[in-house]
Parts: sequence; structure tokens; C-alpha cells
Amino acid sequence: MIKIAILGYGTVGSGIYEVLETNKESITKKAGHGISVKYILDLKDFPGTPIEKLVTKNYNEILEDPEVQVVAEVMGGVEPAYTFVKGALEKGKSVVTSNKELVAKHGAELLETARANKVNFLFEASVGGGIPIIRPLNQSLTADEIYEITGILNGTTNFILTKMFNEGREFEEVLKEAQELGYAERNPAADVEGHDACRKIAILSSLAFGMNVSYEDIHTEGITRVSTRDMEYAKHLGCEIKLLATSRKQDHKVYAMVAPMMIGKENPLSNVHDVFNAIFVKGNVIGDVMFYGRGAGKLPTASAVVADIVDVVKHMGTSIISHWSTEKMELMDTEKIPATYFVTVKTDFHAAIRDAVNKVFGEVEFVQLEGVEDEIAFISGKSTEGDLQEKVRKLAQEAPVTEIASVLRMER
Amino acid sequence: MIKIAILGYGTVGSGIYEVLETNKESITKKAGHGISVKYILDLKDFPGTPIEKLVTKNYNEILEDPEVQVVAEVMGGVEPAYTFVKGALEKGKSVVTSNKELVAKHGAELLETARANKVNFLFEASVGGGIPIIRPLNQSLTADEIYEITGILNGTTNFILTKMFNEGREFEEVLKEAQELGYAERNPAADVEGHDACRKIAILSSLAFGMNVSYEDIHTEGITRVSTRDMEYAKHLGCEIKLLATSRKQDHKVYAMVAPMMIGKENPLSNVHDVFNAIFVKGNVIGDVMFYGRGAGKLPTASAVVADIVDVVKHMGTSIISHWSTEKMELMDTEKIPATYFVTVKTDFHAAIRDAVNKVFGEVEFVQLEGVEDEIAFISGKSTEGDLQEKVRKLAQEAPVTEIASVLRMER
Repeated sequence: MIKIAILGYGTVGSGIYEVLETNKESITKKAGHGISVKYILDLKDFPGTPIEKLVTKNYNEILEDPEVQVVAEVMGGVEPAYTFVKGALEKGKSVVTSNKELVAKHGAELLETARANKVNFLFEASVGGGIPIIRPLNQSLTADEIYEITGILNGTTNFILTKMFNEGREFEEVLKEAQELGYAERNPAADVEGHDACRKIAILSSLAFGMNVSYEDIHTEGITRVSTRDMEYAKHLGCEIKLLATSRKQDHKVYAMVAPMMIGKENPLSNVHDVFNAIFVKGNVIGDVMFYGRGAGKLPTASAVVADIVDVVKHMGTSIISHWSTEKMELMDTEKIPATYFVTVKTDFHAAIRDAVNKVFGEVEFVQLEGVEDEIAFISGKSTEGDLQEKVRKLAQEAPVTEIASVLRMER
Repeated sequence: MIKIAILGYGTVGSGIYEVLETNKESITKKAGHGISVKYILDLKDFPGTPIEKLVTKNYNEILEDPEVQVVAEVMGGVEPAYTFVKGALEKGKSVVTSNKELVAKHGAELLETARANKVNFLFEASVGGGIPIIRPLNQSLTADEIYEITGILNGTTNFILTKMFNEGREFEEVLKEAQELGYAERNPAADVEGHDACRKIAILSSLAFGMNVSYEDIHTEGITRVSTRDMEYAKHLGCEIKLLATSRKQDHKVYAMVAPMMIGKENPLSNVHDVFNAIFVKGNVIGDVMFYGRGAGKLPTASAVVADIVDVVKHMGTSIISHWSTEKMELMDTEKIPATYFVTVKTDFHAAIRDAVNKVFGEVEFVQLEGVEDEIAFISGKSTEGDLQEKVRKLAQEAPVTEIASVLRMER
């Protein structure tokens, strides 16, 4: 019987306990050992519940108990999670976690600590909830040199964008609904500003490219400026707007970013709706593969954590190989990456603007929505962000622009 | 340096050689050892090519060479593949294969032989080409009890159905084009009659449910009877027609089948086009996850075979666990599984047919295509296949039916 401790009895923590109970028999068979929860670390008590006697408020009790071989950290946040996890690994306990902040910040170092102590540090649940992506990257796509990962990595923003698209409602209104449904936090910044997706693409990039990608270096835009009008244009063009996290190797250099993008219907990511996540991986021999599923939620996330526990139990005494070195990867400046842009300009002088756009941007495709008089939109040729900003400035000088209403990256 | 042998230098075999050369450096790093091809078994010679000196026509040379630790079998067909693979495992060599006929027929037994000889038998490439699905089933979804697998497992038929849907062309015509493009064999039966998909769902079911599912027991229909008219109805209803392979656990029993199905746009499988494959897995805690990619082709398939080689090299001396026992699983009779059916009836007497349909089937949804006078279609309530056949017979007696033109399973 393998004894484990769960750090944090919130949504995911209680999910882990539930999954271990529900599927006890099949999990025992697959792990080759029974798995039993010896401790639950939480600040709250849970009187009258089945876990009452497992709860402790003292982490050292867990740390100093040699019977505990696996620790599942699902508290979230960098501290005290980092101290607890590091301590457990140094005591020869394997650790599994769903904590993307921790993994994005200290993943490479904690993997090293695990190796040094002949234990394992696994974090399948930190990206894509229940979707198997970390293990396939490490163990299935080993014949490939991966050159791109692009995904919808945040369910909250995908839910909001789906609702905005389908129902023509504004961001603020849908955000409120998402908060009421429990899909968005009271402080929604981590989701809607793209920080959550940024940490996840940092983790995936580090694993795919084998070096340490700092999330602080990743160009990150959220969805707060995406408007109902943008959605109307997307519909008109047969596109959708999605918050994509992307990371790409080009001439031995990598760039990464998180930004809302207008994408065509032929892109399978355009069909990913509501709280679902999907991750596209492109390799030099496999071509494109995509992984799709629920990117969050109590049981899907707990499923991934428990699968990590099973893997740890099957690999007691051996190191599961992962190629995430502590060596820092210098990212390319995303301002220098050429992209196609969709630009919306408020103006009452269409003819003059069209002339000015053609003068500054060359031949472009103009888009005019029916019934919209005070606005014109166009699709730029490929240009770098720096170049685009410069041209937009020039355009405002050349012609009677009221306002540059929106600038979105586009891939049809 | 690990020495391997490749059995069969056709499309996949040459792909394996190419992948090992192209990504030599990263593969060595991930496997922890260099991997070099010592033999290639083929009936042809390849004079003047880099592999000339590796080719042998004598399998015993490979079998008796203790230096060969891994054998990649990519000849296809049951014999002599089975004899070669069995022999290699008994000699203490690990085997990887892309051969779905072999795995569907002898998978459980060969896994047992591998275990008994402390080597591994891996077959990621036998289902879904490059898509990681076998390893995720074995190693990632371990916290779950899987209750359903449904997939588009054959690229050829998906290509044909996509063309029929998009271009309004008939089956025979598109099949010819697929043959010219090399997507379909000269004898297309294995693909278009559903046998290929049948073997693949047998493999997936065996792994997911841990017992041996015989492909001979699986109810299998192909796409040869799907007509352009069926596609028109599908479009009219906002559906697509896909060849789905499905396997489902219900009340501790399993049923499995391969059949063309009319599915709604909300089903992510409806967005899988051309030669792409996708596999939906449903678990009791993870919910739905989907794996998507190229289900065939030289390099994607070779990528999966080489990933298996890497896994074998990383696990020399230990058994990679898989829960496919030789115990035979009795499948439920699919005739007893209730489904919704889409039925097309040729007739010149619409009013009489409508009355008779309502009398025999109860209230149904009628579907009338514009400009189609001699035909009426309807969507049945849920009924078993036996029940449906009985009702259809009754309908033909009750009313002036010219012909039952089409009966398709449907899931909206």
C-alpha cells in the first residue's frame, strides 16, 4: 500500500480524494499497488466528514513521516507550495502537482531536485486540466523535433469568447455571467489578461524545446479589448476569435505569445467552444496532432493528478525522463515576427481613408459591415508589429481617422 | 548503441529509416542511446542506395544475431509477420509494429510472450498512424474507467466521405480519385468495407476494457452504400456522415461496431475532414478527451514506430504495463442496442406514406428535400436494429413504398 498526502483540500484536492475512492479497484490494478491517503493538509477542519481524521495543519508532520511516499500539491500559488514541494523532494518523496504558477516558475529546478533525489516530479494537470499533453510530449512525440505548439489553454476566456460570438453580447456582461457560473474568479485578471495561458505555454515550450522559457518573457495580451463589433467582423469573414497561446521555433530561435487571434473555420481550433481546451503540436515528421478536452474542472483535473500518482507508483526508484533543462532560452522579440493584422478604423470619410490605407499599406482587402457607416476595416499584408504600429501612426496623419478601434492578429 | 532490424522496407519501413536519420541527434538524447539500423529484411535489393548493405532476405540472420535488441515489424498482414514477431520476442528481442491485422489477431498473446521474456511489444502505430492514442490509453488515462471510445479510424473513407459531402460526387467516382492519389488501395475492400476500422477499434477496446475483443465479433458496415442523396439530407439537417468505429461499456457489458453515422455539427468528429483521424475517449472522471491527427502516411506512421523504439530503449529490462488480457470479452449483440435511424423511402404517394410511417413508427420528424418528388425521409425514435427492421417491413406492407432507399444510424 502506497501512502500519499494531499496538500490543499479545495476543488482539485477533494476531486483527487473522490477519484481515488470511486475508481479504487481499477487504479490499484493499474498502479500495481493500493493507494491510500494518509494526510490532507488544509487550514480548515472538516468535522463529520470521512476525511476528518486525515486533516493536519502541520506540514512538517507529512514531511517527517517516512511512510508518505507521494505528495500531491494542489494548493496553487508559488508560496508556500514551492517550499513544501522542494522539501518533499529533498526528503525522497515524489511530488505531483496541478499548480501552473509553481511549475512555470520553478519547473526546471524542481525536476533537477527530483532527479538528484531519485524521485519524480510530475505535473500533467498543470496544463490542459485532464487532457493528456505533458506525458505525450515527453513520451509519445519523441521521434519528432517539435517546431510549434499552439493552443486554447484557458477555458474561462474560451467560454467568454464563445458566448460573445454566439450571442452578440459584450465582454463585461459575459464575464459577469461566467463569474456567476463559477467559470471565472471574482478577480478575473489571471484569466482574461492572458496570464494563465502564458504560464501554460511557458511550460509546454520548455518541455518541447528542452530549455527554460521564462513566462515573464512571453508577449501576453488578454481578451478585455475584444468587442462585439470584432465578433461581427469575424462572422462576416467566416472566422472566429480565440485566445491563442503559441510558441514556435524558427531558424533555431523561439518566439512565444498569448493574444486574441482571428482564425479561419478550417483551423480545427476554431471549433473548440465553451470551456474546452485544445492543443496543437506540430512536429517535423508527425505533422499536426491535436489534443482536446476539458481544460479545467474538479474531476478532469483530479483525473490527471491521479494518473500522475499512478505513474509515480509504477516508477518508484527510477526517474521518468523529461528534457527541461535549467538553461534559459532567449526568446525572439515578437515585435519582429511578421503577421497579418485585421484593423478597424472609425471614420466618417471612407473614400479618403481607403486612399490613405492603400497609400500606407499597399493593396489590402477592405471589409465593410452592412449598416455600419462610421467605420471601415481592412486586412493588412504580412508585417511585423513594429512596422504595423508605424503604419497605423502614418495612417492617422494622412487621413481623417477618428480612432483606430481595433487591431487583431489574423490567420485564415 | 542499440542495434535494430526493420522488417519490410515499404512506405513505413523506409519512413522509419528516414526519421532515425533526420532526427538522429534528438532521438539519441531522448532514448539515452544511439539507435542504429543493422538489418533491413526485404525481398527486393536496393542497389546503389545507402541501405544496400543492410538488406537481408534471411530472417534467421536477424533472429540469431544477439546484437539486435529491437525489431520493427512493418510488413503488414498476419503471416509471416506473426511467426517473425513471436520468434523475436522468444529470443529476448523487443518488437514494435504498425501492423493492425497482427495486433488485432494476436495482440494479447504477443503481449504475454513479451512479458514472459522480459521484453516489450509496442504498437502505437497500429491505430491512428502518428496520433498518440495507445500510450495515452495505457499511461495517461489510468485514473479513469473508460466507458466509450468512438473514432474516425480510417483516413481513406474519411477522405471519400469528405469529398462526397463537399463536392456532391458519388462514391464510385471519388473512390477512383482516391486510388489515383494513392489514398486508396487498388483493392479497396479493407478500407471501404470497414475492416480496417474494425481491427483498430478491436485493439482500442481490448486496451480500454482490459479483455480480448475479437474483431470478428464486431458488427461492421462500410460506406459503399452511402449516396450523394444521403449527403444532401445530411447537409439539409446540419449534419455530416462519418464512418465511426465505436465501442461502449453499458451495464458491465460492451458493444462495438463500425458503421456510417449521421452526426450533428456540435460533435467535434463532424469537423474531422480529409485523411485526418480522430479518437474520442470518454472516462468516468476525465469526461471527454479527443486525439486528432494524420491517421496514416509514411512519416506520421514512422514517427509513432520510432517513438515506440525510443520507449523500448528507455525500458530495456523492464515491462511496460498494458492491461490487455487474453480472456475473451463477449460482446453484446448490436441489434439490441437502441439507436435513432434516418430512413429514406422511395414513393410517389407521400400522404399515404406519411400516414403509414406515423402508424408504424409513431410520431417522427419528416424531412423533405426541395425538388425531390419521389422520396420522403424521416428520423425514427430510438429503436433497436431488430425492431427497426421489423417496422420497415411493416411499413412496406402498409403503404405504396417503391423502395427503402437508405437506413442510416443518426446522432444529433
